[in-house]
Amino acid sequence: MRPHSVVLSVIGACLLWVGWFGFNAGSALNAGPLATSAFIVTHFATAAAVLGWMFIEWMVVGKPSVLGAISGAVAGLVAITPASGFVKPMPAMLIGFAAGVVCYLMVSKVKQLFGYDDALDAFGVHGIGGTLGAILTGVFATKEVNDLRMGKPMGLVDGDAGQVMNQLIAVAISWGIAIVGTLIILKICDLVLGVRVDDQDETQGLDLSMHGEEGYNLES
Amino acid sequence: MRPHSVVLSVIGACLLWVGWFGFNAGSALNAGPLATSAFIVTHFATAAAVLGWMFIEWMVVGKPSVLGAISGAVAGLVAITPASGFVKPMPAMLIGFAAGVVCYLMVSKVKQLFGYDDALDAFGVHGIGGTLGAILTGVFATKEVNDLRMGKPMGLVDGDAGQVMNQLIAVAISWGIAIVGTLIILKICDLVLGVRVDDQDETQGLDLSMHGEEGYNLES
Amino acid sequence: MRPHSVVLSVIGACLLWVGWFGFNAGSALNAGPLATSAFIVTHFATAAAVLGWMFIEWMVVGKPSVLGAISGAVAGLVAITPASGFVKPMPAMLIGFAAGVVCYLMVSKVKQLFGYDDALDAFGVHGIGGTLGAILTGVFATKEVNDLRMGKPMGLVDGDAGQVMNQLIAVAISWGIAIVGTLIILKICDLVLGVRVDDQDETQGLDLSMHGEEGYNLES
Repeated sequence: MRPHSVVLSVIGACLLWVGWFGFNAGSALNAGPLATSAFIVTHFATAAAVLGWMFIEWMVVGKPSVLGAISGAVAGLVAITPASGFVKPMPAMLIGFAAGVVCYLMVSKVKQLFGYDDALDAFGVHGIGGTLGAILTGVFATKEVNDLRMGKPMGLVDGDAGQVMNQLIAVAISWGIAIVGTLIILKICDLVLGVRVDDQDETQGLDLSMHGEEGYNLES
Repeated sequence: MRPHSVVLSVIGACLLWVGWFGFNAGSALNAGPLATSAFIVTHFATAAAVLGWMFIEWMVVGKPSVLGAISGAVAGLVAITPASGFVKPMPAMLIGFAAGVVCYLMVSKVKQLFGYDDALDAFGVHGIGGTLGAILTGVFATKEVNDLRMGKPMGLVDGDAGQVMNQLIAVAISWGIAIVGTLIILKICDLVLGVRVDDQDETQGLDLSMHGEEGYNLES
Repeated sequence: MRPHSVVLSVIGACLLWVGWFGFNAGSALNAGPLATSAFIVTHFATAAAVLGWMFIEWMVVGKPSVLGAISGAVAGLVAITPASGFVKPMPAMLIGFAAGVVCYLMVSKVKQLFGYDDALDAFGVHGIGGTLGAILTGVFATKEVNDLRMGKPMGLVDGDAGQVMNQLIAVAISWGIAIVGTLIILKICDLVLGVRVDDQDETQGLDLSMHGEEGYNLES
């Protein structure tokens, strides 16, 4: 299902993009050089992810789309988040571009292939984009940006392959917590409230059937 | 009358919320700890006010609504403004939650009871929310956040009930200036330009009858 | 052709206005007094330009319009950009007001007079507004705001008419580069891709005919 208004989707993506600067740059907890670095790589990676998604969509479908561009932006924001404050702008653009291409393939090909239900593409964009960014952080983290280890190498580009392994372990632990935690939460919700609505409510849309909300009041 | 587009109302509330950070935190006139404190309590109080409005709406009507949530946000922003830069996050959440509940009752019950005309709920949300926040500032202001009085107590929580009285006096003076000032301005406008439109113009809507504006141009 | 949604146009102009603070104040590359000055004059000039456009529109047409107000904002943002970081708030308001009036006349009178095609008013608002701002920067630049020349006068108000001449030369060079550069780029695009679509595609709109995009998906 496509969104009913592409214009509002673009505005939402813009607000998200700007707000994400607060998330990544703000995590430095001061307005210093590290915040500046995190801000810049967030912007460059997201812009590159837009281009990456549009490029692969252009190759596969024949035309890039506005919805593709903003999906790419979200993929780039997600992927650069673990790396921001650790990598330089050029690697950030690589991370973003890769996230745009990979998340497009997840959403348009892998989802169809396995047939799983993911209306918001939370798995394809956030799950895979975040995983990709976490692993590539191990590759591109450098002491030239963040000298946390006081002179010792930070990532593979500094000559320490060990951080890639650390990131892979962290990703595995995160996936484990996410899967088990989500299952527990879902099971509890299912027992207490139920997590499926009946077919009629689903077809009518939850806005109307559960929330009693309409997006537009057009009768004057 | 409900707004024609809930989506645009939410976007407007979001822009207002973000802009208000500039208002409250920016009033510190530097990017230091006081600005940070004002920023944080603004956010926490507003979020708590959203929950407060939704909670009381849920109790009274049976369902919280999106329009209620954003009205709560405005009530919270208004109520925390006098207190920001003077109170801690937990009292800020109390102020916000109280503003959400009280302003809901003003808008949905008291307005009906007295039958006054307040299309924008300027009195119910801004007037009452601001008054509540001003009084509670006297209760929760603390020298731990803002040591303006150099070690002496700031508010009731510091052991000085006098500030609550100061705030009540300030509120009374503000109400006086607002009522008298508004009456004078209204009277002058009424004599010079007139402040009522005729029934036909009002029914047609001032956008069309006075401003010659249409929100949408849909004929292609 | 008027935009289909005045509301979305206003939201766009607001996002542009806020974003422009990053452009002008951010150009100081630090959060110091010069950034504050650039921020303030950007806001004052833009607000004055809104009033300028509305004022001249009111005089000429009889009613100011919302679209006029936001066009004025864009004109003000463009005109203050060369001057921000060099002028005081009062001259900034003069620059903005002048830009609002002049750009209105360009867009509503001069365009009709010469009959050139400028759907986005890039020439009338950005070209002329930028030129006006660049020249007035030479008039109002002052060492009291930016002491780049270490005590020597910055602009005409400091007693140095030479800077106005410098700005005129810079404007002439900029126009030259813009005209020649645009012609070269257009010619290359025309040879490689073509810069005109056929009449049917133009009437249908490039969104549909070239991009395959629809702004709204309303069939449910």
